[in-house]
Formats: sequence, C-alpha cells, structure tokens
Amino acid sequence: MSDRSLLAIILAAGLGTRMRSDLPKVMHPIGNLPMLGHVLKALDDGSRKRIAVVVGPGMERLEALVAALAPGATCHLQQERLGTAHAVLAARAALQDPADDVLVLFGDTPLVTPAAIARVRAALARGADMAVLGFHARAPQGYGRLLMEGERLVAIREEKDASDAERAVTFCNSGIMGFRGAIAEDLIGSIGKANAQGEYYLTDAVELANARRLAVVAETADEDEVQGINTRAQLAACEAVFQARMRRAAMDAGVTLQAPEMVFFSHDTVLEADVFVEPNVVFGPGVHVEGGTRIRAFSHLEGAHVGRDATVGPFARLRPGAELAADTHIGNFVEIKNATVAEGAKVNHLTYIGDADIGAKSNIGAGTITCNYDGYLKHRTTIGAGCFVGSNATLVAPVALGDGAYVAAGSVVTDAVPADALAIGRGRQEVKPGRARALRERLAAEKARRG
Amino acid sequence: MSDRSLLAIILAAGLGTRMRSDLPKVMHPIGNLPMLGHVLKALDDGSRKRIAVVVGPGMERLEALVAALAPGATCHLQQERLGTAHAVLAARAALQDPADDVLVLFGDTPLVTPAAIARVRAALARGADMAVLGFHARAPQGYGRLLMEGERLVAIREEKDASDAERAVTFCNSGIMGFRGAIAEDLIGSIGKANAQGEYYLTDAVELANARRLAVVAETADEDEVQGINTRAQLAACEAVFQARMRRAAMDAGVTLQAPEMVFFSHDTVLEADVFVEPNVVFGPGVHVEGGTRIRAFSHLEGAHVGRDATVGPFARLRPGAELAADTHIGNFVEIKNATVAEGAKVNHLTYIGDADIGAKSNIGAGTITCNYDGYLKHRTTIGAGCFVGSNATLVAPVALGDGAYVAAGSVVTDAVPADALAIGRGRQEVKPGRARALRERLAAEKARRG
Amino acid sequence: MSDRSLLAIILAAGLGTRMRSDLPKVMHPIGNLPMLGHVLKALDDGSRKRIAVVVGPGMERLEALVAALAPGATCHLQQERLGTAHAVLAARAALQDPADDVLVLFGDTPLVTPAAIARVRAALARGADMAVLGFHARAPQGYGRLLMEGERLVAIREEKDASDAERAVTFCNSGIMGFRGAIAEDLIGSIGKANAQGEYYLTDAVELANARRLAVVAETADEDEVQGINTRAQLAACEAVFQARMRRAAMDAGVTLQAPEMVFFSHDTVLEADVFVEPNVVFGPGVHVEGGTRIRAFSHLEGAHVGRDATVGPFARLRPGAELAADTHIGNFVEIKNATVAEGAKVNHLTYIGDADIGAKSNIGAGTITCNYDGYLKHRTTIGAGCFVGSNATLVAPVALGDGAYVAAGSVVTDAVPADALAIGRGRQEVKPGRARALRERLAAEKARRG
Repeated sequence: MSDRSLLAIILAAGLGTRMRSDLPKVMHPIGNLPMLGHVLKALDDGSRKRIAVVVGPGMERLEALVAALAPGATCHLQQERLGTAHAVLAARAALQDPADDVLVLFGDTPLVTPAAIARVRAALARGADMAVLGFHARAPQGYGRLLMEGERLVAIREEKDASDAERAVTFCNSGIMGFRGAIAEDLIGSIGKANAQGEYYLTDAVELANARRLAVVAETADEDEVQGINTRAQLAACEAVFQARMRRAAMDAGVTLQAPEMVFFSHDTVLEADVFVEPNVVFGPGVHVEGGTRIRAFSHLEGAHVGRDATVGPFARLRPGAELAADTHIGNFVEIKNATVAEGAKVNHLTYIGDADIGAKSNIGAGTITCNYDGYLKHRTTIGAGCFVGSNATLVAPVALGDGAYVAAGSVVTDAVPADALAIGRGRQEVKPGRARALRERLAAEKARRG
Repeated sequence: MSDRSLLAIILAAGLGTRMRSDLPKVMHPIGNLPMLGHVLKALDDGSRKRIAVVVGPGMERLEALVAALAPGATCHLQQERLGTAHAVLAARAALQDPADDVLVLFGDTPLVTPAAIARVRAALARGADMAVLGFHARAPQGYGRLLMEGERLVAIREEKDASDAERAVTFCNSGIMGFRGAIAEDLIGSIGKANAQGEYYLTDAVELANARRLAVVAETADEDEVQGINTRAQLAACEAVFQARMRRAAMDAGVTLQAPEMVFFSHDTVLEADVFVEPNVVFGPGVHVEGGTRIRAFSHLEGAHVGRDATVGPFARLRPGAELAADTHIGNFVEIKNATVAEGAKVNHLTYIGDADIGAKSNIGAGTITCNYDGYLKHRTTIGAGCFVGSNATLVAPVALGDGAYVAAGSVVTDAVPADALAIGRGRQEVKPGRARALRERLAAEKARRG
Repeated sequence: MSDRSLLAIILAAGLGTRMRSDLPKVMHPIGNLPMLGHVLKALDDGSRKRIAVVVGPGMERLEALVAALAPGATCHLQQERLGTAHAVLAARAALQDPADDVLVLFGDTPLVTPAAIARVRAALARGADMAVLGFHARAPQGYGRLLMEGERLVAIREEKDASDAERAVTFCNSGIMGFRGAIAEDLIGSIGKANAQGEYYLTDAVELANARRLAVVAETADEDEVQGINTRAQLAACEAVFQARMRRAAMDAGVTLQAPEMVFFSHDTVLEADVFVEPNVVFGPGVHVEGGTRIRAFSHLEGAHVGRDATVGPFARLRPGAELAADTHIGNFVEIKNATVAEGAKVNHLTYIGDADIGAKSNIGAGTITCNYDGYLKHRTTIGAGCFVGSNATLVAPVALGDGAYVAAGSVVTDAVPADALAIGRGRQEVKPGRARALRERLAAEKARRG
C-alpha cells in the first residue's frame, strides 16, 4: 500500500475484431471475471486512487460493467481510434486533475499483478518521471524493444524500425507505464503523429521525455503477466496461466487437488486447508469451502458456502445461496439452490432442493423435489430437525415440516406436517393378477401389426 | 478441386495386432469417426473419383463400414499379407481402369489433410510420373529416408539398409504416394520380392521408376499429418492432435472454450461464433450449436441442434433428435431425446424428455418424466405453448397437453389435458399425528434387536 | 521373487509440515491408495519378509492404517526427530533379528517400483554389504551426490559440503538403501552426530562402511521412481506420474482411452482388452470392467464389477457392490449401489437402485427409486426377470416383484407383486377445465400485488 495517490487510466476501447464477438473484448472472462475486473483487482492495493476507463463508441455494456465493478470510476469515450496516446488523452478530464502517480494500463492484459504495478510505482516514488514495464520475451518478434543505456530507458523501438542490433534485444515493451502526475498530461499531450500511420503512439513519450532530460526507467515483469489478448486462443492461453496460478496457490495453502489440471477455479474461489478436491470439479464464482471437506468428482459449485467435514458429490450441483453446514452430505444428481442445510443433514440422491431450509440431521430421500415455483412466484419449504423425507416425495411450497416429521415415500405434501407426525399422500397399491402377461401379449401384437 | 480424375487406393488390410482388439484397426475412431472415415473425408474435394479399399480376410464389418461411408467404393480382398505393393495389386481390378491420378493412402493415417493430398496431385498435374509424400521427422529412426538429388527423388532407403550419411537424412517416407494413372499398374506390377523378407514393397517403385527415367518427386507434409497408428497409445496421440485442431478451429471461429483441453469434439461438431463452452463438455457426433448459446460444464451432446442464446447444462444430456429452439434452458440432470423444445421453454432439473414436443415458453418442473416406452413401442408426448408442468409429474404417452395447460405437482397424467385446464392425479395428503415418533421407536428397537 | 529373507524398514515419522495437513503425510493418497500403501505394494514380491514402519508421536491413525494394509507389520515410535539413522534405529527391535537383506525405504516416495527394489536386493545377493539407490537428476541442486570410484560408492556428499567438481555430479541419492542383514544394526548404530545439526544421518553409513572395507555399491532408478513428496504440489506431480503409468498400461493392454488425460485411475483399476473409455471418467478403488464394455463420458465407478459388452453412462455412478452382468445398460443420472443387475437388464435414466437385485432383461423406467432405507435399517428390493417398471415408480423395500411383473408408471409399490401381475398405485387423473387459466390470473395478480 502506497501513501501516494494514483490515477489509473485503463485503455479498453479496442474493438477486438479478432475475437469475432459481439461482446467488447475486455468483457470476456478469465476465471469467470471479465478481463477488466482483473486489472481493477490488480490495482486494489488500498491506496487513494481514481480509475478512468477509456471506452469505444457503442460500448454501453462495458460502461455498465465499469459502474458495477468500480463504482467511483469514470468512463471516457474515445470516438476515433488514433493510437494509444490519443486513447489516454480521451481521459484528459481525469488527467487534468492528476494524482502523484499516473498509470496507463490495458484492459486486455488481465494477468498483470499487483507486484508488477507496485514496481512501476516504486520507481516513480524513487524519483523517476516515467517508468515503463518491460519483460524478457521468449520470442521477441513483433514487440517494441526497450533500448537501455545503463539504468536509463532511451527509446522504445518498434520491430519494423529496429536495426539488426536492436532486433537482437529481447527486453520488450508491455505497454504498461507510469508517469509522475505533474508531467503526465503535458508530456502525453506533446506526442505527435509524424509517422506512417498518422497515429499518436504513447511509446513516443519515452524519446520525448529523454529530450526533456526527464528520468525514464524500465521495470521488469514476467512475460506471463503482460500477455495481451486479441484472440480466443490467447484468451484460453491466459485462462490457463490464471488457472495454474489458482491451482498452485490452493495447493500451497494445504488443499489436495488430485488432478489439478482437471479442476477449474473462479477468480474468488476460497478453499481452506485440508479440503480435498477430486478430479473434474468446477468452481463458479463465490465459493467458499471449509477445511476437512471433500469435493468429489463431477461437482459444480457457484455462490455456495460449504462447512467443515462435509461431502459434496460426485455429480452435485450447488447454486447461489447454497449454505451447507458442517458434516452435511450432498450426493449424486442433487441440486441445491438458495437453501440452508443444517449440520449433519443428508441429501444424497437425485433431489432438487430450492428455496428451502433443512434442519440438522434430517435425511432427504432419493428423488425428493421441493416445488418452489408456481410459474409466477417462488415459495419456501421448511424442514425441521431430525426429519425423514421418503423417496420420490414432492413437497409443494410454501410448506413446513415440524421437527421429527416423517413423509412416506412417494407422497405429495401440500399442507404442513406437525412435529413427529407422519404425512402420507399417495395412491394405494392394487395388484391385478395376470394383467402384465395380458398387457405384454397385447403390446407385442400391436408392435407386430405396426411392423 | 481438380478436373483430373482420381483413383484412391486405401490400404486397410493390416491386422493391427498391437491394438489387441477384435475390431479391425482402421475402424477405431478418432473424433468419433472411424480412422478410415477421416481418410475418406480428406479425399472429399469434389473431384471425379473412385475409391478402392484393400481389406483383409474376415473383415466383413469393415466392408460394411466402407459401404456406409463411401457408397460407390469397392472393397478388394488381400488374402495373404505380402507387402504394400502386393496390397495395392489386390485392387488390380480398379487399377486396370486407371484415373488420371492414382493415389495410395493408408487407412491408419487418419490425420492426412486435403492440402497434403492436393500437393501430391498437383505434382502429378505438373507432369510428375510419381510423387511421394515425405515429412521432416523429429526422430527419423525407423523410417525410410527419402534420398533426393535436387528435385528428383532417387530412392527410399530403409533404415537397416542405410549408410551413415543416409541415416543422417531426416526427410522421411510417409508411405502416401501418387502415380500417373497410365503407368501405375505396370510400374507397381513390376515390383519384385528379391529381399530378405520375400515381400513386395511399394517403396521399390521409386528406384524402378528412376531406372525407367520417369519423373519422380517428393512433396512435404507435416509430421502430424502422416502419423500412423499401430497401438492404442498412438491412437490416443492422434486423437490429441485431432482435438487440438478442432479446438483451435473453434476458437478461430469465435467460440470461447474456457478450458480447451477439457472439451472433447467429434469430427463434425459445428459451433457458431459467440458460443461459450465451459470446461468438461463432450460433443458426440452430429451437434450444431448456434451463436450466443452457453454450453455449461459437464454437458454431453450428440445428434442435437441448439438454437441461439440458449443455455444447456451444467449436467445436461442432449441425445439424437434433440432440437432446441432459441432462448431455451436445459438444466441439470436433464436428458432430452428425439424431442423438440420450442422458443423460450425451460426444462431445468432432473427430467427425462423423450419422444416429445414442448411448446414455446412452457415450463417443465423438476423430476418430470415422459413415459415414452411401454416395453414394446415408443409413444409421443405433446405439450402445448405456455404450459406449466408441476414437479415430479409423470406424463404417460401417448398424451397431449393443450396450450396453457397446468399439471399439478406429483400427478400422473394418462389422458389428454385440454387447453387452459388443470390436471391433477395424485393421492390426497393425510397426516397421522405422533406416528413418526412411534415409527422411529419401533425402527430403533428393531435395529437394536438385529444388532 | 527372492529366496532371501527381507526386513524392510519404512520411515514414515516425518511431520510433513509443508503439506499443511492434519493427516500424517504418508497417508495422503496417490491413485486413491495412501502413499505408504504404494511402498508396501512395491515390496509385495512374494519373498519372506518382515515390515517395520517408523512412525512419529500422535500418529495413531497411521498405526491403524499399517495394521489394515500390512497385518504382520510392526510399528516403531521415533519420539524425537534426530535424523534418518536415528529413525532407522527406532526399529532396533526389528533390526536385532535381521533378515538376509535389510532395506530402508521412505513412506513418502510412493512411486518406487518393485524393479528398483529388486536391483538393490540383487546387489546384496551378489555380495555387496551395502547398496544405495541413486538416480540421474535433471536438476541435481539440493540432492546429495553419489561419489563413485569405479563400481565402488565412496561417499554421499551433501550439496553444502560439495566441491565444485562434486557439485557437477548428477548421480544423486534417493535415500533408499539396502544392507547385508548381518552388518546392518552395527553399521547404522555406529553413525555419529558430529555435524552442524547434531543429527544422525543414514548417508554417513557409506563412508563408515568404506572405512571398514565393506563393499558398497550404487544402483540406479529413474528419477520419477524416487520422487519424494513434501508439498501438495509434489503430491499432485507424483499423482500425475502415477496416472500416466496407469493410462499407458491400460492402453498397452488393449483399452481405448479416447482422451487419456481426462481419465482418472485408482491403484487397482482393472480394465480388460477392448474396453472403450470416453473422456471424463473416474475410477475409484475396486473396479473391474470386462472386455467389449463402453464406459461413457462423465461416469464414476467405485467398488463395481461390470461384465462384457455392457454400456455405462454417460453420467452414471456405480458404487460399491454394483455387480453388472454382461449386456447391461446403465444410463444417465443413474446410481447403482450394492445391487446386482442381471444380463441384458436396463436402467437407463434418473434412477436410484440400492440394495437390490434386478433380473435378466428387466427394464427399469426413468425416475424409479428403490426406497432401501427407513432411517434405521436397509432393506432389499428384488425384481425378477423380464419385469417392466414404469417411470417414476417408488419401490418401498423390503419388496419383491415376480418374473414378468409390471409396475404402472408413477406407482408406489409397498407389497409384493406376483409373477406376471400388474401393480398400480397412484392417484387417478382429474381434469378441471379452465382452472389453469384461473390459476394463472390469480398468481399473476398475487405477483403484481407483491411487486
């Protein structure tokens, strides 16, 4: 956390044509969070900051996302796309009231880390006027090269303009850079467009700052951190890096992932020590699992909290609002939504529990359905402690079962069941001797007739 | 597409002993299509062509497959296995009526591409008498080396016969080759068996053609394209290459694959731009998904068409004949088979819909089952538009629900329900006060008695 | 198998702090078998042997595991942790009655193979007094180096004590070693603690033995075999090696794994030739699948036996005691537990079969539930041959259906159904014309009222 104030300008106006998508590029998700959200999270170090997001025309959905993810942030429209410096100046209203540090970031480099941003800001804090974040490229072709003279960054040379010696440089430009706030607007505003494309390039700020004898330095990030995304394949590649980070962090925290590469995390997944995760598990957003719990194979969790020493799955689905207490068992082909399951309760097979509360140590039989929806409104089912709901029961909400109530298998329950009472609501069995044989003969004849 | 006619001879008689399988080797699938089908697809460039497949004794299943996949193709039996040239000559009946181009391909190199085949044919079109498809091997050990003199292929040297200098060559023989039709039969028929094994090797055609001062050239394929399959591990390796191709093509077309390595494609899977595919999805044969649709985790689709902006899964299974219109929702633990689901309809939980039609905006409750089978015949369930089927309903086909009909939860429906009518068919609930407690006491005593 | 007797001392007292776990480190599983179990299996070559496991304080769970996995083994408590030699001497009671061969192994190197152990024992059998198992390290940093003079191992040099020349050695110490039984106790008991840590290091035995002019040799293992586990990430890495071994062995045996990397094996999984496994399958412990059977995607099997030419899945769960005969079909969202399914029977959709027997060629309808549990005791359901159970049936155990019985869809069956009889137990359908429209209007008004 820094005591210096920050203005972060995030460029997010790019069309992302190569994504072939109707969705603005920076809204495509990594770990189920839009790319832009990752950049915002990387900035979330507690310092005083303002965020300015530069968007393109027709990106109302993106503006709504910014409002949701970063309520104080401002959006700035870049009408034409005339280069990165032009994009930054679209946020001139924000720049005119600069902070100690002005950072330029990109909405499509979601893997940037707080540590990398901190290094850029630390350089400014140490007195640099401008600091560029570079990386050592495995394959530098296509990237601008950072030309250093000792500690001094003298230029960013585009590939096409580079000499052979410069092309041999592997220290490359990530695009991310920081400016001392007092000089940012003037410096960036002085960038011209005297180049073949007639565009305003933020990278020109380096030579301009050197000409003004300002202190320009470079900091270093891992290549993974500054990967930009222009295609769905690059999106998938960044997702893979992100997943590897999450898996590694979970294991370091004491979680067993039997097959890490078969577990998919969301950006905010929280698993405590001694959680055991089998292969083929997907964590959607908003999941917290306490220690000692086993998440079995083929489980899908989102918006769910699971207490200690519980068992979930295989083939369980926990949806938003699922609150499972300690020692609960949620078994196969079971869906839990907006429901609490109290300590020691079991819902083991082929069941839908929605908008419900299940008391401690209750046992919900296979095939039970809570009918929570009438086509218009949702209603709640309340099941007390120590209840036993027989298989294939249908509980028509709103309905309540008292503690210790018992529902006979196959019953439809529409009215309250008092504590310790038995509810039964089903047809009585009749047996028709020989009728099955007669039926088979008739059906076989019918099948033969139809050919 | 070429205007030259083609005779493609596909060698498929190999026993595949190392597969340890009762199934002929070339019938093992890649992307859920038998290997041989991939070779046939690679030939499918619209030119005038005949296909001749050389099979081994007792391969009736393979002959039936050829008839199904390539109706005009002929099968030719190679009684004994006396080498590749001998195998080609098993199709002498086809060779005697040659096309402009005669190609020899292998049923166990399913990754060969139309582009590679086109390069061989282009060489013939430019005047070559014979053209061999080579590849630059990462590890050439074991492959025959292509010995070039300038543009001229002078010999294919087997590893065991190669000098040290020849062994250093990494340009290797894929086995695939093309011949000018007019010379093919005579050239191949002239191959002798004066070698240690006493077999007829097609590779000898190169030196023979050179001796006849024919023009022999080599074309180049990627090593991946010409991988042959002899073991299940090689089958899996080729499948992996194939899956990587399909995943990359889908992403290039604008599909998001959150975790590409956790999505399995079939050879004919069609996903439109802005389809979003979560991890752990399997596409069986015959799937087409329109844009804007999200296929959630743990979904399995085969023979299904999904319209725009739909949601499928998690844990959904679409079987052949599932036709989902736009904006439909198919949720968890739901199976849809041979059924249409009209626009905006929802089938969200624990349901089996088979041989049915569901009208627009209808809502099918959790646990609903269409009883489509009586042990002999299948029957159809028709549900109108705007219907509401309560949970755990049992719809006994043939049966029809009119538009706006409502089925009470837990009902068994055996007769038609008119439009806007309510059907109810279930036991009425009774409550027996204190009976649950008494039951518990009795059961606990019984358990104690049994120890 | 050797005719020499063996004493294997397995060190398992390590705290495993970096695992961040309440579970003793060697109890963490690989392939669903605790690490220690793998070491015990590697020793299972049929020779006369005693096993001594050195455990730490408070590891009662581990002692119980040893008793379960290796009934004749003894546990020895190492009170303080004063080095590997000290740990071995905790088992002095076992050492005092030595075997021909004394081996020291580690509970946290579960991938050690019988072949590697056999090489160490063969060296002893050939006359060596001591034999150390080494490996050629890809990255030797941190490992002790094996310093050889010809065939003679003269010292194990720790990284920190090594000269530059010694550091260049890549032949490293796995820790596993063998001693001629007659000298083991005396040699190990002579190890001192004159080092910076004041601990007793087993590696010092090498120089000590050389000083005594004993014959000390080194044998070689693959690096994978001797990977030690100290973190969850290393646990996952070893699991990956183990899974790769199992997948490769299955494919070599004639099993098709469509996507090997998406199939998870247990240590004892048995799949016969021509089993076909789709992607996303998890084999828990105790599974045996016969040839010709297809395990479809998203299936989870444990403790199950599946006969020939059956189909399981997609989305099937077989639990312990599932015994499926040949030609059975278990379909989607079906759970089978402690139940036999006879030849040709089908359980295709959304069903729970627990504690049941299903006769040949019977067909169990979608949504069928066997109610096997009353909250206290489990009861059995018996279904004869050729039965047809209609959809959404509830079978309340104990209950029996005779051969050829038929249960009407939606019925609750509480009493026995004779052979060829039809059982029906459900409410009769009523239709209330116009009532759905009235209901909709009422609910819509209610929804509007609530806002």
